[in-house]
Amino acid sequence: MKLIDGKAVSAKVLEECRGEVQALKDQGISPGLAVVLVGEDPASQVYVGSKVRTCEELGIYSRKIVLSVDTTEDELLEVVRELNADSTINGILVQSPLPSQIDEAAIVRAIDPAKDVDGFHPENVAKLTLEDPTGFVACTPAGCMRLLAEYDIDTAGKEVVVVGRSMIVGKPMALLLVAKGADATVTIAHSRTKDLAAVCRRADIIIAAVGRPEMVTKEFVKPGAVVIDVGVNRVDDASKKRGYRLTGDVAFDEVAELSEAITPVPGGVGPMTIAMLMKNTLQAARQQCS
Amino acid sequence: MKLIDGKAVSAKVLEECRGEVQALKDQGISPGLAVVLVGEDPASQVYVGSKVRTCEELGIYSRKIVLSVDTTEDELLEVVRELNADSTINGILVQSPLPSQIDEAAIVRAIDPAKDVDGFHPENVAKLTLEDPTGFVACTPAGCMRLLAEYDIDTAGKEVVVVGRSMIVGKPMALLLVAKGADATVTIAHSRTKDLAAVCRRADIIIAAVGRPEMVTKEFVKPGAVVIDVGVNRVDDASKKRGYRLTGDVAFDEVAELSEAITPVPGGVGPMTIAMLMKNTLQAARQQCS
Repeated sequence: MKLIDGKAVSAKVLEECRGEVQALKDQGISPGLAVVLVGEDPASQVYVGSKVRTCEELGIYSRKIVLSVDTTEDELLEVVRELNADSTINGILVQSPLPSQIDEAAIVRAIDPAKDVDGFHPENVAKLTLEDPTGFVACTPAGCMRLLAEYDIDTAGKEVVVVGRSMIVGKPMALLLVAKGADATVTIAHSRTKDLAAVCRRADIIIAAVGRPEMVTKEFVKPGAVVIDVGVNRVDDASKKRGYRLTGDVAFDEVAELSEAITPVPGGVGPMTIAMLMKNTLQAARQQCS
Repeated sequence: MKLIDGKAVSAKVLEECRGEVQALKDQGISPGLAVVLVGEDPASQVYVGSKVRTCEELGIYSRKIVLSVDTTEDELLEVVRELNADSTINGILVQSPLPSQIDEAAIVRAIDPAKDVDGFHPENVAKLTLEDPTGFVACTPAGCMRLLAEYDIDTAGKEVVVVGRSMIVGKPMALLLVAKGADATVTIAHSRTKDLAAVCRRADIIIAAVGRPEMVTKEFVKPGAVVIDVGVNRVDDASKKRGYRLTGDVAFDEVAELSEAITPVPGGVGPMTIAMLMKNTLQAARQQCS
């Protein structure tokens, strides 16, 4: 069993980014990312903090905008419009989830697609579906693709089962894997799939993105399969000081024994997400300045 | 074996459309479709002819615009812009294929998404991916979904294999089938799939959309499967006066013996495509006038 080390690959991607930032600055371009946080959700604060910190480490200009939890949709739209018009900002990220008075889809649509480094705007979703490489690919699926590439895991002609059909992971993941060049035979499975274990056992590569702790057990995995675990779940654990532990969608210990290669949680897909966000921000800066 | 009669279902859909046209006219709305043909491709002439004729039969205003084969991209873009601005036109269809001097993607992007009754504009592609029902669904996959519904073929929890990953059939078909409500477990297979026959034999429902005559033979089909044949291929046939016969992607005779239900070619998916185009045109008229 090979452990797919997301921290190491993420560090490599960030090192590439450092070089790209320098190259952009040599051309007089200073890439910038704006991160908008509404409210005080602790997990969101952590995510936003790491995004801003990573920007700083790479020399990417970052602006953190924190709005109160009672911000209206119109107020947030106005902030987005200002960032769209701001030439020092190449990428805009509005941290999810948003308070219930705000329609998240309306906010996503309001972001200039050229600055939509999350890859959630319909125009970027369409570009992914239409295999147009000028779009931004959502960071988590892009990170999974990079992990596979770094470990020389060829997807062409392979059976891949994507468990989960969400707009932010499952569907873009399936579209990336079935696109020309990746060429996988892709099955999208989900909560309504009959005998999910049997469907997953067909897979040469399993992408687990359901958000259910340790749902993928050894019965789901063909010996020698590659397992990519996108899940990040909090499970109560009295033995931990904070009262919980983080676990993926995969029962790691029993699945690791069977698999050819597997991502841990934490330290697998997670670190890749921020790294791909930085990549997208630099792509945005290049495209806007060319 | 049950024959899935696309002509009969199409007639039913067109009858529904007739009622909807009347209801719109009662509200003072006169739906209109523009069909643009560039050049003199005989097959395209036939398709455009049937679209215009069907409009006439339903009382939908239609405008047929025929441009010479040496039309430039700019000239065609200008025609599209005029139709976008024309309030008597609710739907715009530019017949494919276009001559090589014209970038088809640029034309599709120029069509007002609200009038894109073919469902090819990126905005409608995104809406399909994001499961937003206000978009237009490409006519052929929409027609396949309707055929399944009319024959009470439930897709929830079923294993569906879509053979083909094109932007106009394979991918939208897969996205429709995996969406909430349809809930199928969907595999997208294609030319790079290993042992395509074995993959297809897993299917409760096969959607064949590859454009290779009679490629799906009985070795591809589990007894009792439902087979939807999207292919329309010309095969040389000296015994026919016109020198060819039309055949689907499925070896009909041998597959029909095994299957629970199957679409013939012609008379299966084909007639549904025009019927769904009429549906989309009426949806466009309703949405533009509401």
